[in-house]
Amino acid sequence: MKKTVALGEVPHFYRETDVVVCGFGGAGACAALEARQNGADVIVLERFSDGGGSTELSACEMYLGGSGGTSLQRELGFEDSNENFRAYLLQCFGENHDPERLTAYTEGAAEHFDWMEAQGVPYKRGFFGGRDVVAMTGDSLQYTGNERAWPFNLVCEPVPRGHLPADSDHNGGKVLMGVLKKRVRDAGAEVIVDARVGQLITDGDGSVCGVGVKIDNEMRYIRARKGVVLTMGGFIMNERMTRRHIPRQESFATRHGNPGDTGDGITMGVAAGGNAINMGEAFIGVAHYPPAELTYGIFVNQAGQRFVNEDVYLARMGEHVFRQHGRRAYLFIDNAHFSRPAYHDTTEIVAVGETIEEVEQEAGLPAGSLQRTVAYYNAHAERGEDPLFNKSADWLTPLSEAPFALVDFSLDKLHPTVFTLGGLETRSTGEVLTSDGDVIPGLYAAGRTAAGIPRTGEGYASGMSVGDATFFGRLAGRQAALAG
Amino acid sequence: MKKTVALGEVPHFYRETDVVVCGFGGAGACAALEARQNGADVIVLERFSDGGGSTELSACEMYLGGSGGTSLQRELGFEDSNENFRAYLLQCFGENHDPERLTAYTEGAAEHFDWMEAQGVPYKRGFFGGRDVVAMTGDSLQYTGNERAWPFNLVCEPVPRGHLPADSDHNGGKVLMGVLKKRVRDAGAEVIVDARVGQLITDGDGSVCGVGVKIDNEMRYIRARKGVVLTMGGFIMNERMTRRHIPRQESFATRHGNPGDTGDGITMGVAAGGNAINMGEAFIGVAHYPPAELTYGIFVNQAGQRFVNEDVYLARMGEHVFRQHGRRAYLFIDNAHFSRPAYHDTTEIVAVGETIEEVEQEAGLPAGSLQRTVAYYNAHAERGEDPLFNKSADWLTPLSEAPFALVDFSLDKLHPTVFTLGGLETRSTGEVLTSDGDVIPGLYAAGRTAAGIPRTGEGYASGMSVGDATFFGRLAGRQAALAG
Repeated sequence: MKKTVALGEVPHFYRETDVVVCGFGGAGACAALEARQNGADVIVLERFSDGGGSTELSACEMYLGGSGGTSLQRELGFEDSNENFRAYLLQCFGENHDPERLTAYTEGAAEHFDWMEAQGVPYKRGFFGGRDVVAMTGDSLQYTGNERAWPFNLVCEPVPRGHLPADSDHNGGKVLMGVLKKRVRDAGAEVIVDARVGQLITDGDGSVCGVGVKIDNEMRYIRARKGVVLTMGGFIMNERMTRRHIPRQESFATRHGNPGDTGDGITMGVAAGGNAINMGEAFIGVAHYPPAELTYGIFVNQAGQRFVNEDVYLARMGEHVFRQHGRRAYLFIDNAHFSRPAYHDTTEIVAVGETIEEVEQEAGLPAGSLQRTVAYYNAHAERGEDPLFNKSADWLTPLSEAPFALVDFSLDKLHPTVFTLGGLETRSTGEVLTSDGDVIPGLYAAGRTAAGIPRTGEGYASGMSVGDATFFGRLAGRQAALAG
Repeated sequence: MKKTVALGEVPHFYRETDVVVCGFGGAGACAALEARQNGADVIVLERFSDGGGSTELSACEMYLGGSGGTSLQRELGFEDSNENFRAYLLQCFGENHDPERLTAYTEGAAEHFDWMEAQGVPYKRGFFGGRDVVAMTGDSLQYTGNERAWPFNLVCEPVPRGHLPADSDHNGGKVLMGVLKKRVRDAGAEVIVDARVGQLITDGDGSVCGVGVKIDNEMRYIRARKGVVLTMGGFIMNERMTRRHIPRQESFATRHGNPGDTGDGITMGVAAGGNAINMGEAFIGVAHYPPAELTYGIFVNQAGQRFVNEDVYLARMGEHVFRQHGRRAYLFIDNAHFSRPAYHDTTEIVAVGETIEEVEQEAGLPAGSLQRTVAYYNAHAERGEDPLFNKSADWLTPLSEAPFALVDFSLDKLHPTVFTLGGLETRSTGEVLTSDGDVIPGLYAAGRTAAGIPRTGEGYASGMSVGDATFFGRLAGRQAALAG
């Protein structure tokens, strides 16, 4: 089926409204709310029988800060300037970052937290200072990324920025989306479920003025007087697309997302003239913690060499394992710190031994390689130093209590979770751009349908997807309501 | 300007023909020739005042083999089965490879050599067995990639596949394009120069039936009864595109291509419904040889560790330097093997010393790191072994003659050449595909406008671009002539 249809070819309009939001996850809900709050009539179209999207499936951390600190940060004693927040995000995404988006986000994220709390999402004034992917203490503030790790700690002050709904463990998404979905309906947006959007209606001048959507297995057309907002997720569930855009990551991936992450928003946007960018980038989740104690271990590649400071966030570890020959990597750990990695608890222990030489031999590592690596590491760890990769002294201690183990974190064995970080190029307002940088009138995108704040696995931190999706969803909904 | 125009909106046709070929480089010339040979009337549109494209700027090696060997390979005593050729290309591009394209290429490459010779391109029955990017001996056959290096030598028999026009050194492109451009005109194709194609004409059903082209600063329309072939190069000269698709590589790149590599073919193809894939991949040319003797040296990263076998092709070295922290890498070499790298002869020597410790200190590498690396390397090189990275025994010798030097190959210092490896997804026949995998009737692409055989810098070898562009240019021209 063609992904665009000319206005002149539309036989009949089933509905007409100001703003059509396609997809009722975190980005879509926020877009709908802001569009309503700015006076627009809104129809939300959701492919499944209920909204929620990948946001609802997540722990729903949001990565927020700046403006001196969100109210949660400040009340817990943390300061966070825009400069500090921006410096961190710049270090995360380097040349891949979008300057306009970064400015909007660092300046607006603190207000976004207040807005989210005002919607009714509960947050608890408690700080979890440990090392975990999701705080299991009920607290709402935690470190979630590489804030305290090299080289991030060279360029910015470590500040916790993970904002988690109260007492929610891994179920924050249900809490947050439960609140937002109700708010959207209460605000008077019409939500049509079991409605799969498949076409954008384009005017003669290239502007977008509605959608074609399958409802009750029949294509119906909805006119949008002001704009169409695409918040339809990423493409990790579309095998044709992952094979072409992230073929290497696909080869070992456990696909992470909701079944609707089939890239429809991206391909429709491209068909209407949009530019898909950053399409080869993905998150690779090599969760070498929890438990936090495993951070005392060292990662080695097939040459028995270390390659990264082990106190990094799990997606940074994923990216660095991905770069090793054969994508092979092993955690070396001693008896004092050994336990099973919680998220990869069936991963093979490839060698156990009373000496490092025994482990090295059993694992088939080059003779002497692991022994040399551990000897060098231990000698410096004793002094709280890691001259090779600058792991924090908090996680440095000689690995010297036999027996020793080598745990397989090779990607073809681990099958880590993978999701996509590419999508439509937009302005921070959600306006979709062509490859020449022109705005396509009437077309907006947010969430993983757009290329957002997080653009590399190397710099990713928990909370960046939901933070980005909900924040820029709001901007897109507002822009659509005020335009046209 | 919109990149497509509806047939109904075309005011007047300046010309009408069977096949319009956009771009007169290697791919375009071959497409035009095959289209003519298959009975089609052909117009070739060239943006500049003469054709040639990036093919003409290159040494014009073609990476060919299979079918038992090209006539050049066989006459020089080399056998090359389809299976062996395919196994090599599979190892090169892994999950990124296109199976259909690989089959067509491995089966057809030997015939392609005969065809090229039949056009009048001169080849000399001489084999250069040394290690160089381009043979400077006048010989036409050489190794150009990773054929003899690990891990390629584990999965296939090393065979030289670089086919270079006779006695041409770095000027093979002038030789080959000189021949092809004359052949195209002799074959009766009309070549219009100073003609920049900017739009594809699309029919109501989405098929492509012509182009809009600026000639004498006026938009003119040319109808193509059978098809339009896009052979307009890659996008390395388009800063807006490189910033979005290869932002990291752009940050240190010396852009390598012709001024017409502005991505117009790709963006027009996408506007007509095509799918751009592999857009984040690029060639990074870290030429650590010639002179070949530098291969005896070892590359270390900022942790003073080796990370790859140094006997690899220059783009594989580029990719592995790219993966190191800070993209920093140094060549460590002793007095017995030192010289300036020919392609990077102004690169800084960051340290020189009578001892390795001195070099390590002067370069600011972690204390003991380089000393340990060299000690381990030397001890094994003595026995012809490289247990860490399997460098061939041909290039293994202890580095022990003082003084020692460390030469900077960090990417932000080196500014290596970079070109793009992404483009339109096509069938091996050049038919452009949508993101759903449907053929767009009337639209073809080849050369760097398409995603071709070479899809990663990690697996690239000299001759793959021109081999791919000319071979698939021919297939696209033939298909266009026979279709419709």
